[in-house]
Amino acid sequence: MPKISKRGTLMPNSPIRKLVPLAEEAEKNGKQVIRLNIGQPDIPTSDKALAAIRNLDVQVIEYSHSAGMISLRRKMAEYYKNNKIDVSYEDILITVGGSEAITLTLLTCLNAGDEILVPEPFYANYFSFATSADVKVVAITSHIEDGFSLPPIAEFEKKITEKTKGIIICNPNNPTGHVYSRKELEQIRDLVLKYDLFLLSDEVYREFVYDGEEFISAMRLEGMENHCILIDSLSKRYSATGLRTGALVTKNKQLRDTALKFCQARLSPPYVGQIAGEAALDSSDEYMNYVYNEYDHRRKFVVNALNKMPGVFCTMPKGAFYIMVKLPVDDSEKFAMWMLKEFDYQGNTLMVAPGAGFYTEGNLGKQEVRIAYVLNEEKLAIGMKCLEKALEAYPWRTTESVKAKSLV
Amino acid sequence: MPKISKRGTLMPNSPIRKLVPLAEEAEKNGKQVIRLNIGQPDIPTSDKALAAIRNLDVQVIEYSHSAGMISLRRKMAEYYKNNKIDVSYEDILITVGGSEAITLTLLTCLNAGDEILVPEPFYANYFSFATSADVKVVAITSHIEDGFSLPPIAEFEKKITEKTKGIIICNPNNPTGHVYSRKELEQIRDLVLKYDLFLLSDEVYREFVYDGEEFISAMRLEGMENHCILIDSLSKRYSATGLRTGALVTKNKQLRDTALKFCQARLSPPYVGQIAGEAALDSSDEYMNYVYNEYDHRRKFVVNALNKMPGVFCTMPKGAFYIMVKLPVDDSEKFAMWMLKEFDYQGNTLMVAPGAGFYTEGNLGKQEVRIAYVLNEEKLAIGMKCLEKALEAYPWRTTESVKAKSLV
Repeated sequence: MPKISKRGTLMPNSPIRKLVPLAEEAEKNGKQVIRLNIGQPDIPTSDKALAAIRNLDVQVIEYSHSAGMISLRRKMAEYYKNNKIDVSYEDILITVGGSEAITLTLLTCLNAGDEILVPEPFYANYFSFATSADVKVVAITSHIEDGFSLPPIAEFEKKITEKTKGIIICNPNNPTGHVYSRKELEQIRDLVLKYDLFLLSDEVYREFVYDGEEFISAMRLEGMENHCILIDSLSKRYSATGLRTGALVTKNKQLRDTALKFCQARLSPPYVGQIAGEAALDSSDEYMNYVYNEYDHRRKFVVNALNKMPGVFCTMPKGAFYIMVKLPVDDSEKFAMWMLKEFDYQGNTLMVAPGAGFYTEGNLGKQEVRIAYVLNEEKLAIGMKCLEKALEAYPWRTTESVKAKSLV
Repeated sequence: MPKISKRGTLMPNSPIRKLVPLAEEAEKNGKQVIRLNIGQPDIPTSDKALAAIRNLDVQVIEYSHSAGMISLRRKMAEYYKNNKIDVSYEDILITVGGSEAITLTLLTCLNAGDEILVPEPFYANYFSFATSADVKVVAITSHIEDGFSLPPIAEFEKKITEKTKGIIICNPNNPTGHVYSRKELEQIRDLVLKYDLFLLSDEVYREFVYDGEEFISAMRLEGMENHCILIDSLSKRYSATGLRTGALVTKNKQLRDTALKFCQARLSPPYVGQIAGEAALDSSDEYMNYVYNEYDHRRKFVVNALNKMPGVFCTMPKGAFYIMVKLPVDDSEKFAMWMLKEFDYQGNTLMVAPGAGFYTEGNLGKQEVRIAYVLNEEKLAIGMKCLEKALEAYPWRTTESVKAKSLV
C-alpha cells in the first residue's frame, strides 16, 4: 500500500470540526447539542440572495470567467468604495470563499519553505492552508489579559528571518474579537515596508464592529499598494456561509496576474454563489442593521453570562462574533470532549472549540475555548447554563482560581 | 516590492483560456467567435438541477459537512452501484468540482518534489494542479496516428524513479477522446501494483462513450482498493459546469481520512451546488439520452467535416466531447491567434485550444488543436466552415501534406 504524503500527515484536524463525531454521537443518544464551536449563524440569509437563487433564469449553469463574473466584481468595487477602500473591479478576483483567497495568496506570494508571521491565537485554518502550501507559520503570541491586542513589534522583529515573506492579520479578529487600532495598523505597515513583506489582511468580519470602535482596512494604509492583499468573503456579512463566494483583492497587478493563473486551473468559482452574492450586495439597510444588532445583543448576553461564572475570564470583544474565554479547567479540549460525552444539563450540552487549536504551541490556550455567539438568545442561554453547570461538575476543575480581571 | 513565488512564476497560463482576451477583442470588433476551445456545452442543464435551485426552501445557506452532504453522498453511491462501481457513501468526499478532487489527491498522496506519470496529451490543468502542489509531471507520449491509445508499458517503466508516486489517467480522455480498453487498464493496474503507486482515474466523461465501446472504471480493477482514486464531477454529465460539484472516491480509508483534513480547512463545498447535484442524479432517461445523442451527433458531424479538409487529420474519438486534430500549419497557437486577430469568414471566426498546451514539450502538438464539440450543429457548421477557409487563407500553411490516414 502506497504511503500518504508527509504534508497529509502533518495536516492538523480542524480544532473547530474535530469534535463533530462526538457531537453526532451525543445527538444520537438524545442530547441537544448547542453548537457554539463554529461560525455557522442561525441568522437568515439575506433575502436578496435567496430571491436571486429562486429566480435563477438561465438554462445553462456555466463556468464563469476564472476571475469571477464582471458584474459581481463591479458591484463589489462599489461596495468597497462605500467602505473607504479605493479599488476597481480589476483589482478583485472572486474566489471559492475566503479560504481559497488565502490559499491562492500563499501559493502566489510564498515559496515552499518560506515563513509567514501570524499573531496568535489565530483562525486555525491558517495553519492548514499554510501546510497545504508548504509554508511555515511563525506565531507571535497575544494575550487574553491584554484583550489580545497587537504584541509589541519587537516580538515580530525577533522572529523575522530571510525566509519571512509575509504577515497575516485578521481584523476584526477571529477568534479573539479584537479590532486593530490605527496605531496598531501603522506599526504593522512600518514593519511590512521595512522588511518588504506581503500583508494578508483577512477582513471578512468588517461589518461587525461594536461600541463605536472604528474599523480601518489595511487597504487604506499608505504606501502598501504592492504589499497588501485583502481577503474577503460574503459568507458572514450576508449569513450565507454555504455560498462559498469570497475575494482576493489587491492593487499589485503582478500578484493578481499570477493568482489568476491558479484561478484558471480550477476554471471558475461557483455560478450560483456569484449570482446570489451579487444580489446580496443590495441587501437592505434594515437587514444589515438587524444582523448587526442581533450580534451586538448576543455578544453582550454571552459576555455578561460568562463573567458571572466563578473562575471564568474574558474581555469584551470589539468585533466579529467570537470570544476567547479562559476557563478553570485542566485542559479545555478534554473538558469540551467531556461535555459531549459525559455531561448534560436537562438533556442539553454545549459544543465549543478548544483553544489550543488556535495557537501553534499546544500548551498555550490549554485553558481557553472559543465561543461563537451565532445562535439566538434562547439557545445561548441554554448553552451558558450548560457551561456553568459543567464547570461545577467537571472532575478536573482547576483549584487555583484564574484571575478574573474583566476589562468589560 | 516583494517578489512573487517561484511556483507562481512557473504556473502556466491555461492553454484553454489564454486566448480569451483575443476573443473578447474580436467580439468587440463585431466578429462572432465560435468558441470550441473550452468544454462549456450549450446543452441545457438538467431540469431537475434547475428546479432544485429554484425551489430552494431553506432560510439559511449553511456550511455543509466538510465531506459533503450525506444525502448527496448516499445518492452518488447508488449511482455508482448502478454503474458497476461498488462503493459506499463513506468512500465519497464531495469536492469543489473535479479540480479540487485532483488537487486534494495530489496533496494527500504526494510529497513536494515527487513525480506523477501522465500519458500525454493530457488535460492541461493537471500540470497546473501539479505545479500548485510542487509535484513534477512526467509525461509518456501517445500519438495521434495510433488514435492516442496507451503507450507501451515499457515507456512508463523507463520513466519510473524512486520519486514516482502515481499515475493519472483520464478515461474517457480529455483531450483525445480515447476510451481505455480492459487490456490497457489491466496493464496500468499491473504497473501500479508492481511499483506500489497511486492511480488517479479521472472519469468525468463516463456517460459519453460511443460506438458501443465499453467503459470500464478503474475502480473495478481487482486488487486496487488502496491504490485507486476516482476523480469525478457532475459538471459534464448534467451540463452544469458552474455547479462546482465533484468528488474524490476511494476505498483507501487512510487516504480519505487525510484528504478530509484538507476538506475541513476549506470548510465545505458549495451548498447550492450540492442540492442541485443531488437532484440532478434523478435526471430522466429522456434527458440523459438526449444529451448523449446530441454529443454523438455532433461528434460525427465534426469528424466528417474535418476529414473533408485537405491536410487535416483526426481519428474518430470514442468518448468525451473533444477531439485532437492535426492541422497543416506551422504552429497551431500562432494559427489560433491569427484566426482571432486577422481572420473572419462572413463575420465569423473560430476559437480552438492550441495543442502544445496539452503536452509537456512545446514541440509536440505544435500542429494539433483541441476542438470541443460542445455547441449545436448550426454553430459547429459555421466553425468548421471558418476552419476550412482559415486553413486556405493562413499565410504559414505547411507545404508538406500531413498523412491523412483516417481511422474513421
